[in-house]
Amino acid sequence: MNREFTLDASRRERTGLDEAIFCAGKSLAQIEAILAHAESAGRRLLLTRLAPADHAALPAERTAGLDYDPVSRTAILGSVDPPADVAAGSEPRAGVVTAGSSDIPVAREAARTLLYDGHPCREIHDVGVAGLWRLLDRLDEIRSFDVVIAVAGMEAALASVLGGLVPGAIIAVPTSTGYGVAAGGETALRAALTSCAPGVTVVNIDNGYGAACAAARILNARPR
Amino acid sequence: MNREFTLDASRRERTGLDEAIFCAGKSLAQIEAILAHAESAGRRLLLTRLAPADHAALPAERTAGLDYDPVSRTAILGSVDPPADVAAGSEPRAGVVTAGSSDIPVAREAARTLLYDGHPCREIHDVGVAGLWRLLDRLDEIRSFDVVIAVAGMEAALASVLGGLVPGAIIAVPTSTGYGVAAGGETALRAALTSCAPGVTVVNIDNGYGAACAAARILNARPR
Amino acid sequence: MNREFTLDASRRERTGLDEAIFCAGKSLAQIEAILAHAESAGRRLLLTRLAPADHAALPAERTAGLDYDPVSRTAILGSVDPPADVAAGSEPRAGVVTAGSSDIPVAREAARTLLYDGHPCREIHDVGVAGLWRLLDRLDEIRSFDVVIAVAGMEAALASVLGGLVPGAIIAVPTSTGYGVAAGGETALRAALTSCAPGVTVVNIDNGYGAACAAARILNARPR
Amino acid sequence: MNREFTLDASRRERTGLDEAIFCAGKSLAQIEAILAHAESAGRRLLLTRLAPADHAALPAERTAGLDYDPVSRTAILGSVDPPADVAAGSEPRAGVVTAGSSDIPVAREAARTLLYDGHPCREIHDVGVAGLWRLLDRLDEIRSFDVVIAVAGMEAALASVLGGLVPGAIIAVPTSTGYGVAAGGETALRAALTSCAPGVTVVNIDNGYGAACAAARILNARPR
Amino acid sequence: MNREFTLDASRRERTGLDEAIFCAGKSLAQIEAILAHAESAGRRLLLTRLAPADHAALPAERTAGLDYDPVSRTAILGSVDPPADVAAGSEPRAGVVTAGSSDIPVAREAARTLLYDGHPCREIHDVGVAGLWRLLDRLDEIRSFDVVIAVAGMEAALASVLGGLVPGAIIAVPTSTGYGVAAGGETALRAALTSCAPGVTVVNIDNGYGAACAAARILNARPR
Amino acid sequence: MNREFTLDASRRERTGLDEAIFCAGKSLAQIEAILAHAESAGRRLLLTRLAPADHAALPAERTAGLDYDPVSRTAILGSVDPPADVAAGSEPRAGVVTAGSSDIPVAREAARTLLYDGHPCREIHDVGVAGLWRLLDRLDEIRSFDVVIAVAGMEAALASVLGGLVPGAIIAVPTSTGYGVAAGGETALRAALTSCAPGVTVVNIDNGYGAACAAARILNARPR
Amino acid sequence: MNREFTLDASRRERTGLDEAIFCAGKSLAQIEAILAHAESAGRRLLLTRLAPADHAALPAERTAGLDYDPVSRTAILGSVDPPADVAAGSEPRAGVVTAGSSDIPVAREAARTLLYDGHPCREIHDVGVAGLWRLLDRLDEIRSFDVVIAVAGMEAALASVLGGLVPGAIIAVPTSTGYGVAAGGETALRAALTSCAPGVTVVNIDNGYGAACAAARILNARPR
Amino acid sequence: MNREFTLDASRRERTGLDEAIFCAGKSLAQIEAILAHAESAGRRLLLTRLAPADHAALPAERTAGLDYDPVSRTAILGSVDPPADVAAGSEPRAGVVTAGSSDIPVAREAARTLLYDGHPCREIHDVGVAGLWRLLDRLDEIRSFDVVIAVAGMEAALASVLGGLVPGAIIAVPTSTGYGVAAGGETALRAALTSCAPGVTVVNIDNGYGAACAAARILNARPR
Repeated sequence: MNREFTLDASRRERTGLDEAIFCAGKSLAQIEAILAHAESAGRRLLLTRLAPADHAALPAERTAGLDYDPVSRTAILGSVDPPADVAAGSEPRAGVVTAGSSDIPVAREAARTLLYDGHPCREIHDVGVAGLWRLLDRLDEIRSFDVVIAVAGMEAALASVLGGLVPGAIIAVPTSTGYGVAAGGETALRAALTSCAPGVTVVNIDNGYGAACAAARILNARPR
Repeated sequence: MNREFTLDASRRERTGLDEAIFCAGKSLAQIEAILAHAESAGRRLLLTRLAPADHAALPAERTAGLDYDPVSRTAILGSVDPPADVAAGSEPRAGVVTAGSSDIPVAREAARTLLYDGHPCREIHDVGVAGLWRLLDRLDEIRSFDVVIAVAGMEAALASVLGGLVPGAIIAVPTSTGYGVAAGGETALRAALTSCAPGVTVVNIDNGYGAACAAARILNARPR
Repeated sequence: MNREFTLDASRRERTGLDEAIFCAGKSLAQIEAILAHAESAGRRLLLTRLAPADHAALPAERTAGLDYDPVSRTAILGSVDPPADVAAGSEPRAGVVTAGSSDIPVAREAARTLLYDGHPCREIHDVGVAGLWRLLDRLDEIRSFDVVIAVAGMEAALASVLGGLVPGAIIAVPTSTGYGVAAGGETALRAALTSCAPGVTVVNIDNGYGAACAAARILNARPR
Repeated sequence: MNREFTLDASRRERTGLDEAIFCAGKSLAQIEAILAHAESAGRRLLLTRLAPADHAALPAERTAGLDYDPVSRTAILGSVDPPADVAAGSEPRAGVVTAGSSDIPVAREAARTLLYDGHPCREIHDVGVAGLWRLLDRLDEIRSFDVVIAVAGMEAALASVLGGLVPGAIIAVPTSTGYGVAAGGETALRAALTSCAPGVTVVNIDNGYGAACAAARILNARPR
Repeated sequence: MNREFTLDASRRERTGLDEAIFCAGKSLAQIEAILAHAESAGRRLLLTRLAPADHAALPAERTAGLDYDPVSRTAILGSVDPPADVAAGSEPRAGVVTAGSSDIPVAREAARTLLYDGHPCREIHDVGVAGLWRLLDRLDEIRSFDVVIAVAGMEAALASVLGGLVPGAIIAVPTSTGYGVAAGGETALRAALTSCAPGVTVVNIDNGYGAACAAARILNARPR
Repeated sequence: MNREFTLDASRRERTGLDEAIFCAGKSLAQIEAILAHAESAGRRLLLTRLAPADHAALPAERTAGLDYDPVSRTAILGSVDPPADVAAGSEPRAGVVTAGSSDIPVAREAARTLLYDGHPCREIHDVGVAGLWRLLDRLDEIRSFDVVIAVAGMEAALASVLGGLVPGAIIAVPTSTGYGVAAGGETALRAALTSCAPGVTVVNIDNGYGAACAAARILNARPR
Repeated sequence: MNREFTLDASRRERTGLDEAIFCAGKSLAQIEAILAHAESAGRRLLLTRLAPADHAALPAERTAGLDYDPVSRTAILGSVDPPADVAAGSEPRAGVVTAGSSDIPVAREAARTLLYDGHPCREIHDVGVAGLWRLLDRLDEIRSFDVVIAVAGMEAALASVLGGLVPGAIIAVPTSTGYGVAAGGETALRAALTSCAPGVTVVNIDNGYGAACAAARILNARPR
Repeated sequence: MNREFTLDASRRERTGLDEAIFCAGKSLAQIEAILAHAESAGRRLLLTRLAPADHAALPAERTAGLDYDPVSRTAILGSVDPPADVAAGSEPRAGVVTAGSSDIPVAREAARTLLYDGHPCREIHDVGVAGLWRLLDRLDEIRSFDVVIAVAGMEAALASVLGGLVPGAIIAVPTSTGYGVAAGGETALRAALTSCAPGVTVVNIDNGYGAACAAARILNARPR
C-alpha cells in the first residue's frame, strides 16, 4: 500500500537533528500510523503539540513506549539518556529563560527538545523585566551559557535586556501570552525582531521546538 | 468672507490647554491665514510639524513673532516665559527620556509643548536598554518626576523597564525610528501597549505634542 | 524545590503599586500555588481575568479569603478598606465612564483595581455619543475628576468628545465590544490613539487593570 | 486605430451619473486623448485627481474649455450651471461638513462633483468634535440637509456625533489627514464603519467624488 | 437604584430612527432588564444579534411580547404593522439583494429592521455574478428601487456590477461568508469600498441593521 | 413558493464546469433543500466543506445517492465514472502534490473535484523541501504532468522549488497548516504569490476545489 | 574574477521558459554586466521593470541590441519573431484583458513576455464591469481564448465576471491602480483570490510577467 | 555641555560586540559629533546605513579615517585587520549566501560587520532555488560553515532549502527585494519564520548587521 507519509531517514546525517512530528494538524489515525512505523523501524521520534486528549486517545500499545509530558505536550519515542560526553558535574551550555510562568509550556518544549537532541539545559523562570531585580539576580548564571533561549510574550522586552547583558547566542521565542494588541504573540515577535540589542535572533511564535533545534545546531558544531 | 477655519477660543477654559495647530496637512496659505488671525486677535498659538522649508517660505511679517525650533519643527507665537509659580531652584515635575539620539526630535516637541503650557521639564537622552547601565545611572533623577514621557522606537523596551522602576505616571511615545518590522513605529506602539509593567499609557507614534498635553492635564490638577 | 514563579516583593516600594496576577494564561495549579504562597506570606494580591469556572474550581481553602467579583472576573486577597485619608463625604478624584453597558465588565475591572490600590472612584455608564445628551447630562460631574478612565468599544468616539470637554487626565480603554471591522477592539484602540482631542492616553484593549494602575500612578503623586 | 479607452456613453441613462475620469494613474498622453475625444464628441466630463502640474502640462487647446480647481484637483469640461429647477432662494438639500481645514481638498472634490451632477450644496468647515460647540453652533443648519457628507480624518468621531444628532442620510468620507496610526486614513475609515450611531455609510478614503455620487443617487430619486 | 443602562428616549426625534439593542456583548441579565424596562415604559424595541439559545433562555414573561426570527436573530418588541401611508398595491421603494443563500441571515436582519422602521422592502436572493444571467433576469425590478441593499461576501462583485446598472442608492453590506483570504468579510468590505462603479456606500461587515438604518434615513426624507 | 436559491443551470455550457455547492455557511435546511431540488431535477452536484457531522445529520433519503468522503469533506451526487476518452493505461495529465501529510484533506478535495469534472489525477504526498530528496525521487513523474497542483502550508517553499524544476502549469494551494506567523495560511499564500520561480499561480487558502477547477479549465481546452 | 550573478542556463530545458531579469532592485552596473555577459554568450534575455531613466542611462553599446518598450518598461535582447508554427491568419490562443486604461502598462508587460516566449496574444482594453456592456460586446472573442489574462485594480470584479462567462483558463493580475483601501493592489489581489467564480488563479500585484509565464506553461503543453 | 548621546563603552565586555551606530535616523550633525567623539577617545566604530550622499557631506577630517563601502553603506572607524588567531590558510567558519544579486547590499553589510568583529567569512551569491542546481553546486562548501547567513527576499525559500541540507546554524535575513505582496520584505520574513526546516532563526528585514552580530555571538563562544 502507498503510505501517505515519508519519514526523513537521513535528516540526522544532513542536519544533525533527529526527526520530529508536529501533531497539531494530523488526525489520530495519521499519528498512530507514524508511531507504528517508527517503532517497527526501531527509530527515535519526537512528537510535539500532542494534546493530552489526543495522547489519551492513542491505543495503549502505541503509548507504552512514549515518554509523554503534558505541560509541553511533547512525547519522546526511544531513549533520552544524556549523551556520554557530558560529565556528571559539568555545567549545561544552554539555558531556557522565561519572562513569566505562563511561558513555561513553550520553554519546556524547548528543554525537552534539547534533551532529545542530547544537550542538557537549565530552565530559569519568571524573570521578566517588570521586576528587573529578578533577572539581575540570575545574571551571572545566564552569562555562563553559550546559548540562551529567551521565552517571553506581550512585548518581550526580556530579549532586548538580555541582549545588552550577555555574550552568548540569544534565540528569542515570542509566546502567545497576553491579549488585545499582544495579538497572539505577533507583538512579542515584532518586538524581538526590532530589538535595540544587537544579535538577537527569533523563531516563530510559541516555537520552543524550533528554538531548541537552532540551539542544537550551534551546540553541535565541532570544536576548532 | 467665510473663514475656512475656526479657532477654538474656549479650549483653555474647557480643558486647561491652549490651542495648537498641526501644520503637516495644511497649505502655506492656510497656515499664514491662521497666524495672521491669531496675531490680530492677540492670541497665543503653538504650531507643530512646521517643516523648516515651510517656515522659511512664510512671509517675514508672519515669522517675526514666532519662536521657531527646527529640531522639533515647532513654533510658538506669543510669550513662553516659565510660569511665575516655578521658583528658581525648584525641580521640574516632568521628565522627557529618550532611548536613542534619533528620538530627540519627538522628545523636543514634547518639551516645547510643556514649555508652551507652562510646565518646565528635563530631557534625558540616549538611555535605551541595550546599555542598561546608562538608564540605571540616571534612575534616581527619573524616579523624582511626577510624570515621565518615555520616547523610544523599535521595540520600545524602555517604557517597560521604566514601568517597573519608577512610581510616576509614564506616558510612552513610540517613535518611527527603525526599519523593516519596526514598521514606522507600529511595533514600538504595540510593544508599549502590551508592556508587562503596570500602568504605562501610550499616545500615537511620534506624538510628542500629545504626550505633553497628557502630562499637562496631570500637572494642571489642583492640589487637594 | 524550585518554585516556577517569583512574586515581586518590592513592587510597591519601586512603583507604588501592589502585585497583581493575570490568570488567563495560567493553569489552575499555578494559580493555586501562587495563592497559597501569598497567603502563607501574608501578602495582598489582586487576581485579574479569573474566569468564574476557574474560581469555582479552586479548592475552598484557597477561595475562602478571596473577594471575588464575577462581572469583572477579579479577586482580591487581603483587605480592601478605603484608605484612611479619604474622609466620608469627600468626592472621588477618579471616574470610570462607559459608552455602553457591554463595556461594564472592563470598567468594573478598573474600578476594582482602584479600590485595591486605595483610590475610590465613581462609575458612570452608558453615556456613548450616539445619544450625546446622556453625556452632557453628566458633564459637570465628569469635569470634577482629576482622572477619567473612558471605556468604549467600536469607534470609541467617547474619548475624543471627553477630551474636548474635560480638564482632567483621560485614559482611554478601548474594548472588544463590536464585530466586523471593530476587530476585537483594534479599531477602538486606533481611534483613541488618533483622537483629535489633545492629551488622551491609551492602554491595551480591555485593559481595565492597566488603566487603573496608570490612574493610581497619577493619584499617588505627593502634593507639592 | 484601436483606441485604448472606451467612454461609457450610456452611464447617465443607466445610473443617472455622468462620466468622470480618474487621472491619478493615467499618463498625460492618455488624459489628453480622452479630453480630445470628449470635446470632439461634445460630451461633458469630470476629471478628478488632476494634479496642478499635470493640468499645467496639458496643451492649451485642451485646457481652454476646462474649469480647473487646484484645491480639489478637479476639472470640469462642459457647462456647470446650476439646474433649472433650483430656484434662487431655495436651500440646498446637501451639505458637506469637515472636521478640520486639512480636510477641505476632499470636501471640495465632493462639492464640485455635486455641482457637476446638478446638485447645489453648502460647505461647513472645521467643526470637529475636539471643540464640540463649533458643531452645535451649526446643528440646525446641518439638520436641514437630506444628505450630509461628513469629511474627517484621524478618528473621524464627527461622523458618529452627527449620526446621533441629524435625521438625514450620512455619508462619511474618511480622509488621510493625520500620521502614525492614522495610517493614511485607515483608522478614520474603520472608525466610521464601526460608528455607534445607526445608519452611517462610508466610502473609500479621500473619496470625495464617490461620496458625491452616492449623494446624487439619493437626490436623483423621483418624488413619490 | 442606579440603572446600568440609559435608553435613548429622544432618538426618533433627533434621527428618525427608533431605538435598537445589540445583544451580542450583553449578559442575559442585562437583556432581561432592558426588556422589562422598555415594556413597563410602553416603548418599542428592536433586538439584534439575539442568538436562539439566548432567546430561549429568557423568561417567558419577557418573550411573550417579542416577535422573534431565528434566521436573522432579531426580535421586535411592540407593533410591526406596515405604516398607514403604504397603500396595498404600492411597490416597495427598497430592495435587499443577496449574492448567495449564505448571505440570507444578514439580508433578513436588514429587511426586519426596515419593517421595524416602517418601510416595506423586497428580498431578491442568490443572484451573485458567477451566474450573471440570474442578476440580469431581475434587473428591471432592481432598477425600480430608490434604495438597494446589496448583501455579498467573498469579493462582493455584486455591488460593483449593480453600481454600473442601477440608478438608486446602493448600500453594500459585506458579509463574513467565505474562508481564507475572505478574512471574515474584510475582503468583501475592501472590495466594496474600492468599487469601480461610482456612488456605492458601505457599512460594517454583516451589518444588515446599519444598512437598513441608512436606507431608512434616505426613505424618511420629506418630499420636496 | 419563492425558492431562496437558484441553481446555475447553464454553468457547464458557459464555463465547462458543473455546479458545486459550498456548504460551510449554509444551514442544514438549505443543504437539504438544494439536494432535494437537484435530485428531482436529475442534476449532478458536488458538495464541498460538508462536515461529517452535517453529513450524518442529513436525512437518509438525501444521503443515499451521495458519494461522501470524510477526509476531504466532499460529497458527489450523481455518476463519477472516469470519462470515456481516458483509456485504461493512459497516464493522468494532472498531479496533486503535498508538502506534508497535514495537507492531505485539501489535496483530496482537489482530487475529488477533478474526478467529478472528469479528469483523473495522481496524488503524491509528503514531499516537502525540508527533505529535498523525497521530492527529487518523484521528479520525473511530476515533470510528466500538464498541470501540477502544489498543496503546502507554512512557507510553501514547495511551489517555488517545483516552479524551477517542472514545465507544466503550477497551481499553488496554500494551506492553513502551521501556527503563529503561519497565520492560517496567509504566509503560505503570500510566499506562493512572491515565488522566485516564474509562472506559479495561486488560489485561496485551503481551496482545493478552486485549484481543481482551474486545472479543469486547462485540461478542457480543445486540442489545436 | 568572481561574478556576482549566475545566469540560469538550463531554465528553458527544465521549465520551457527563457531567462528574464527583474531590474527594479539592481544597480545600473549590475544590469550592464548581465547584459554584456548575455550578449557575449549569445543568449536571449527579457528585462522587466527597466525604468526609462535607467534604460537611457545604459551605455549605447548595451542598448543597441535591445528592443525597449517604455509603457511596459520591458526590453528584449535577441530575436522576437513570432514562432514559425503560427500561420498568418491563425487566431491567438491567449488574450490580455484590462478593466481600465490605467492597467495597460501591466497588461503590456504580459503581452511582451508572451511575445518573448513565442506566443501571440490579443489585448482588449477598458472593459471593466462599471460599464458591463463594454465587456459583453467583446465576450465572444474572449470566450475563444484558451487562456485569458485579466488585468484589473481596485476591486478587480472583472476576474469574477469573466470567471462566470468564459471556459478558458483565467489568470488574474491584480494591479496597484486605485488609492485608499485599494492599498496598492492588495484589495484587488484578495478579491481575485476570493472570487465567487470557480477556477480563477492569481499572481502577484502588477505581475504581468508572471501571468504570461503561467500562460506560457499552459500553451507550451504538448498536444495529447 | 550636555552631550545628546552616550557611547556604550562597556558593550564589548558585556556582550563581546563592539559599538555600532545606525545612521539612518540621525542628522549629519549628530553623526559628525559621534565620529569626533569616538576619534578623540580612540575608539573603534562601525557605522551602518550611512548613505553615500551623507558620507560625501561629512567634513574631510571626519571621513579621513573611515573605511567606507558604498554597496553596503557601511563605514569602519579604526583598524579592520583580521584577528591574529586566523592563520593564513584557514577556512572561514561563516558564510553569507544570497538568493539573488539584488540581495548583495544586505549580504555585504553582514560581511563587513563580521570583518569588523574579527571573523572572516565567504560570500556566495545568486544561488536562489528557482535554479536549484546553482545551490547544489556550492553545497559542500556551505555545509562546511559553522554559521550560514542566508539572505533572500520575495518568498525566501532559500532558508528552508538550506535548513534541510546543512548542519550549521542558519540565520535568515529577509530582504526587501520584490514588490506587491513581497511587502518590503514582510513575506520573506514570515516565510523564514514558518520554515518547514527545523532550527532556522531570523532577524529583521534587511538587517545584515544584526545577522552578523548573531553570528559573532556564536563564533565568539570559548571552546569547551
